[in-house]
Amino acid sequence: MSGSFSFRIDARDGRARTGVIATPRGEIRTPAFMPVGTAATVKAMLPENVRATGADILLGNTYHLMLRPGAERVARLGGLHRFMNWERPILTDSGGYQVMSLADLRKISEDGVRFKSHIDGSAHLLSPETSMEIQRLLGSDIVMAFDECTPHPATEDQAAGSMRLSMRWAERSRAAFGERPGHALFGIQQGALFRDLRAESAERLRAIGFEGYAIGGLAVGEGQAAMFEVLDYAPAMLPEDRPRYLMGVGKPDDIVGAVERGVDMFDCVLPTRSGRTGQAFTRQGVVNIRNARHRDDAGPLDPACTCPACRSYSRAYLHHVHRAGEIIAAMLLTWHNLHYYQELMAGLRTAIAAGRLADFTHDFRVAQDDAQAVGSASPDQTV
Amino acid sequence: MSGSFSFRIDARDGRARTGVIATPRGEIRTPAFMPVGTAATVKAMLPENVRATGADILLGNTYHLMLRPGAERVARLGGLHRFMNWERPILTDSGGYQVMSLADLRKISEDGVRFKSHIDGSAHLLSPETSMEIQRLLGSDIVMAFDECTPHPATEDQAAGSMRLSMRWAERSRAAFGERPGHALFGIQQGALFRDLRAESAERLRAIGFEGYAIGGLAVGEGQAAMFEVLDYAPAMLPEDRPRYLMGVGKPDDIVGAVERGVDMFDCVLPTRSGRTGQAFTRQGVVNIRNARHRDDAGPLDPACTCPACRSYSRAYLHHVHRAGEIIAAMLLTWHNLHYYQELMAGLRTAIAAGRLADFTHDFRVAQDDAQAVGSASPDQTV
Repeated sequence: MSGSFSFRIDARDGRARTGVIATPRGEIRTPAFMPVGTAATVKAMLPENVRATGADILLGNTYHLMLRPGAERVARLGGLHRFMNWERPILTDSGGYQVMSLADLRKISEDGVRFKSHIDGSAHLLSPETSMEIQRLLGSDIVMAFDECTPHPATEDQAAGSMRLSMRWAERSRAAFGERPGHALFGIQQGALFRDLRAESAERLRAIGFEGYAIGGLAVGEGQAAMFEVLDYAPAMLPEDRPRYLMGVGKPDDIVGAVERGVDMFDCVLPTRSGRTGQAFTRQGVVNIRNARHRDDAGPLDPACTCPACRSYSRAYLHHVHRAGEIIAAMLLTWHNLHYYQELMAGLRTAIAAGRLADFTHDFRVAQDDAQAVGSASPDQTV
Repeated sequence: MSGSFSFRIDARDGRARTGVIATPRGEIRTPAFMPVGTAATVKAMLPENVRATGADILLGNTYHLMLRPGAERVARLGGLHRFMNWERPILTDSGGYQVMSLADLRKISEDGVRFKSHIDGSAHLLSPETSMEIQRLLGSDIVMAFDECTPHPATEDQAAGSMRLSMRWAERSRAAFGERPGHALFGIQQGALFRDLRAESAERLRAIGFEGYAIGGLAVGEGQAAMFEVLDYAPAMLPEDRPRYLMGVGKPDDIVGAVERGVDMFDCVLPTRSGRTGQAFTRQGVVNIRNARHRDDAGPLDPACTCPACRSYSRAYLHHVHRAGEIIAAMLLTWHNLHYYQELMAGLRTAIAAGRLADFTHDFRVAQDDAQAVGSASPDQTV
């Protein structure tokens, strides 16, 4: 594993780009979707099967891993890649987002966030310095700066204060990260829905300098219209030649809209979580496999899909095993959803490379709208 | 799928035999272990991975399948094989064992067993005739006669009455089964721990005539010594040229002892259930992966094992994902346990074919006893 971290843009179509992030652990084709492997596993999947869906990179959660099994333990065991049997790139978040959601269990100061574990109540500090150290121990390839994800809704004053704290933490993250060839540190733009604050945040991040830039504080309840409004200007505030990562997004049509607006990387629990709750993403909208009308349906989830769930099982079977609470339901539906997401990303990359993104997004939206409008035999809803 | 059902014994070593049951859906190498796929899934496994462990045949539960998704539905959907994506042989039990365990929810008469579903309280009848019909609708390759599994403990009078009811039901099962080329009906010997009753039961079954014979009413709490005592005489009461199936057995050393006594087929939920509760079978005894001493262990469950759990993951990882309640823990440990069971069966078959069964069982017991005696670094207990 020698080599360095780099980003190359191969083609553009409007504001959208397609390219490759090169790391010592392998290439990441962009636009990229990163399945979430919270606790050192992409839930209900073996890592070789996650790879088979087309994933180039996984996301790991610092908060969960620091508490269990613990970052020092993971380091002693050879790092997160070996531990979870995934030798390709891993991005870790900073833990900031999760500790903020602990509400009564955490206390924010200039230093960082003191919090109590949701597992055993033990006391911990997450700060720019400890977050960098934990992500180093995990062996993460792409490390996220420690920040505060500004809650929604926020007044402009609240958003400004929160963003400026994150920018001071971004400086400390950069300093604590040090020199780590082949590893990347990404800064995170904040500023909520306020254009001036987004501009100020971007300027401060650029002044510090990062290998990539995330757009944070979105997908927190503001809705797609408000999110797209920010994405109409925020990506262009960030360096053109570095990857742009929209954190925690999202639904398929969120991703399509964000790619059109110049975003390169995504992560979301939606495909995996939905797989466990019986929601399947298809070209014709979302299928809720729990619905009784699938009980006698000998057809596959999606006739055009080549994933194992669609190749070898009927909707009737998936309905049965989901209703019976069988583990195979989560296994097959998660696989299908991750396959769907990776096919979507591959389609976006191909379309951008061919200069046909408008056609692709048009067809994508027509299929989704048709499903929503006519309540066809296939989808139960669109999301 | 043309062809007929047959059994060929290729080699004998003492009372043990190895051979092949040929069915239109494929061959079953004996002694055989059948993983249990209760509700049309071997829990936490994809069927192609069950096959990869070496399984030639699965067991399905009539009771569960008749209630959900329903035998008529399975038939409409093309049968159980297609439904669950397992094209090789399937044996179904008669449902008798499960309905007996419903206690207050069932009523036994000469006709059969009336019971209420544990899922929705609906009323059902299982009788020799309905059980044959349900197993036919499922498309089972090896159908079990409908019987009463005599409860343990039972007086000789109780055991005799129960056995004779089962023998009358065996006659009705044979009549209801009819002519189904390529499909087999197995009779089930009862008689609890009473040699005379076992002899009477065997005689009545032989008079009816079946393609195979099960030894029922064991592994119900009588203990291994009492079970082996029955197995010292019961198999020889059954036709020499037909497969003998010991139902619901068992622990690895139960299976080894039963093979030595002339049994050809086994089924048990132990490897799959144990996989979900964190118990792993190894050559050196049972490992309880929950145990804190595995927390920092970078070594595999069993260095000699070639299953995915042992090839690619540490005990520390398996400990972590099991403690975190992650689905991958059930997936990997179940795979390991099924792999262990199938390797054990393959070892027994090879040893019998080579006339070296005594060496094999000696080595097997030494390894298990060593583990128990010295509390070595590997096992947590032996079973």
